[in-house]
Amino acid sequence: MKKIVIRPNILPRFTEVYVGRNLLWGDLWKNLFEGKKTRFVIIADQALKEVYGTKLASHLNAELLTIPSGEKTKSQDVLDKLMEELFILGVNKDTVLIALGGGVTLDLVSFAASIYMRGVQHILIPTTLLGMVDAAIGGKTAIDTAFGKNLIGSIYHPKAIVADVETLSTLPETEWVNGLAEILKMGLIFDAGIWELGKKDRKDPELILKAIGAKIEIVEQDSTEQSLRRILNFGHTIGHGLEAVARYGMPHGRAVALGCVVESYLSWQLGYLSVKDVEGILALYDSFFLQLPDGYSRQGLLQALSYDKKRSSGQMRFVLIDEIGHAMPFDGAYCRSVSLSELESSLDWMENTYG
Amino acid sequence: MKKIVIRPNILPRFTEVYVGRNLLWGDLWKNLFEGKKTRFVIIADQALKEVYGTKLASHLNAELLTIPSGEKTKSQDVLDKLMEELFILGVNKDTVLIALGGGVTLDLVSFAASIYMRGVQHILIPTTLLGMVDAAIGGKTAIDTAFGKNLIGSIYHPKAIVADVETLSTLPETEWVNGLAEILKMGLIFDAGIWELGKKDRKDPELILKAIGAKIEIVEQDSTEQSLRRILNFGHTIGHGLEAVARYGMPHGRAVALGCVVESYLSWQLGYLSVKDVEGILALYDSFFLQLPDGYSRQGLLQALSYDKKRSSGQMRFVLIDEIGHAMPFDGAYCRSVSLSELESSLDWMENTYG
Repeated sequence: MKKIVIRPNILPRFTEVYVGRNLLWGDLWKNLFEGKKTRFVIIADQALKEVYGTKLASHLNAELLTIPSGEKTKSQDVLDKLMEELFILGVNKDTVLIALGGGVTLDLVSFAASIYMRGVQHILIPTTLLGMVDAAIGGKTAIDTAFGKNLIGSIYHPKAIVADVETLSTLPETEWVNGLAEILKMGLIFDAGIWELGKKDRKDPELILKAIGAKIEIVEQDSTEQSLRRILNFGHTIGHGLEAVARYGMPHGRAVALGCVVESYLSWQLGYLSVKDVEGILALYDSFFLQLPDGYSRQGLLQALSYDKKRSSGQMRFVLIDEIGHAMPFDGAYCRSVSLSELESSLDWMENTYG
Repeated sequence: MKKIVIRPNILPRFTEVYVGRNLLWGDLWKNLFEGKKTRFVIIADQALKEVYGTKLASHLNAELLTIPSGEKTKSQDVLDKLMEELFILGVNKDTVLIALGGGVTLDLVSFAASIYMRGVQHILIPTTLLGMVDAAIGGKTAIDTAFGKNLIGSIYHPKAIVADVETLSTLPETEWVNGLAEILKMGLIFDAGIWELGKKDRKDPELILKAIGAKIEIVEQDSTEQSLRRILNFGHTIGHGLEAVARYGMPHGRAVALGCVVESYLSWQLGYLSVKDVEGILALYDSFFLQLPDGYSRQGLLQALSYDKKRSSGQMRFVLIDEIGHAMPFDGAYCRSVSLSELESSLDWMENTYG
């Protein structure tokens, strides 16, 4: 027997992130490709075609495709249709795809970019707060399946992210909550400064920048979710479970916010978090008027949790915090197994408080 | 405007390659995961279920799934079905997938591994010569589409490759040709020693090892096909075109062999390759009894070439050689544009000789 070890020389990919006002119409684009003539294909959320899509296509001399609005777009069917449109346009390995929209658009288009001809370059233009602080950052791409959300996807980094806060000016309230839930989570697990800012002016652009910076710092340290990056799942184990129980009729932001509350409570109940901190956390989330979704049942939630990607050999694993701004490292695992009996008293409390 | 640059820390993935006899039944497996108890799911070509599949599943205490034999298996439909089976089995991020079969199985299962829950570990067991020297090495994964072969896929490296030459003992002649065409190509572009060995005993295990080693050397230098790796496309521009014209009724190995002949001729015709070398090349391929496929037409071939991934801005690019064992670097591009008029006299010659 002969053994050889292959060490593939994987090229580092750098992502340039731009945050500011009125970036879309400037000459950012020329600098990105050092003046080289580039073919762009914009893939926009249908709802954004009139607002920005057509204008941007004309500004960049780009082709424009649209995909339907809404979470159902993150499906194999919509992906198949998009890939076909790209083949028909004759998109090749030198073409750059531009995703214009919220998290759904970014996740789908990034996944398409990662598998079209084994990968083409792409640029993200998030137009929601959640898209800017969460979906755009970190290279995670995905579509949903009948078995759960984000179960098919890849890790694939864009060439650039262009966060133009001007695009948030017409954002509806529910979208602000979606973004804020992620920003506050970042405060709880990583940066108490974000939590403090989040207590005050929640539309402060500085808050957006700080949240993006925090996520970048985490992702740079651990791109493939082997360790530190797992802390981003804080609030999402319960949050995803609640969304599943509600058959995705519960807005993501509200599910994550309630997830953060319950997982903070769990952190206190297991003896890691002080009573002062957990009280402070509960107080801030009061303004969200959180409640359990229609159709909630304990059994349904536990069943949904068992499909969770973070589960290892049948155990449920949770990210936990020991103070505001700090997730527990647990020897680099950044999560620990929580038995069903440990979890159940937190669920009792959740049902009594938010039922 | 504020600019931040993300430098994702992409973990290097090492692939361990084992070449030898009777590897499947040894304790190689324990060493691979350092004794850690691991859940394996074998995905085998249907035709191999009886021969090796059931026995290996029992040896590894693994679950066993099968996929149909034949190139049509590299489709979105078969992929969707496989992903569904994995979800139903409850395969999670800690499970290791094992692909058992030829190039088709390896390409499909590797692609599935790369996108299932954003990537799970996998091991390749190639059971054909082509699988060992080509498909298994280099991390390219793919499925075919209505618009062409391998147009959807990823670059994703396996944890290990186990090439057990024992599995070749029942290989049919047409599969030997498929493998030999790739091995000889490797001789033409990279290692004259392989070419010399290929002239003599074509079933020499040393030849397999040398070919694997050559491909590894190329892929290590350029995993994502930015430069050197492009030389592996030698013979494939024309070869893929011929396969498309024949609606994939032409065996891959024969298409690649004829592609290598035509692209060697083109290298001579453009003044790069000596007449002595091109004559030597033509002589060796005589034993393949090459001919153009049924349904061949010049127009059909040119049309098929325009869907080629290697095309850039409407130009056709070819890898060319200047001696046996050496592809031309062209300043690191490793290919050059060939105009239609330059190409046509090579096609005239091909039609006269192999029509």
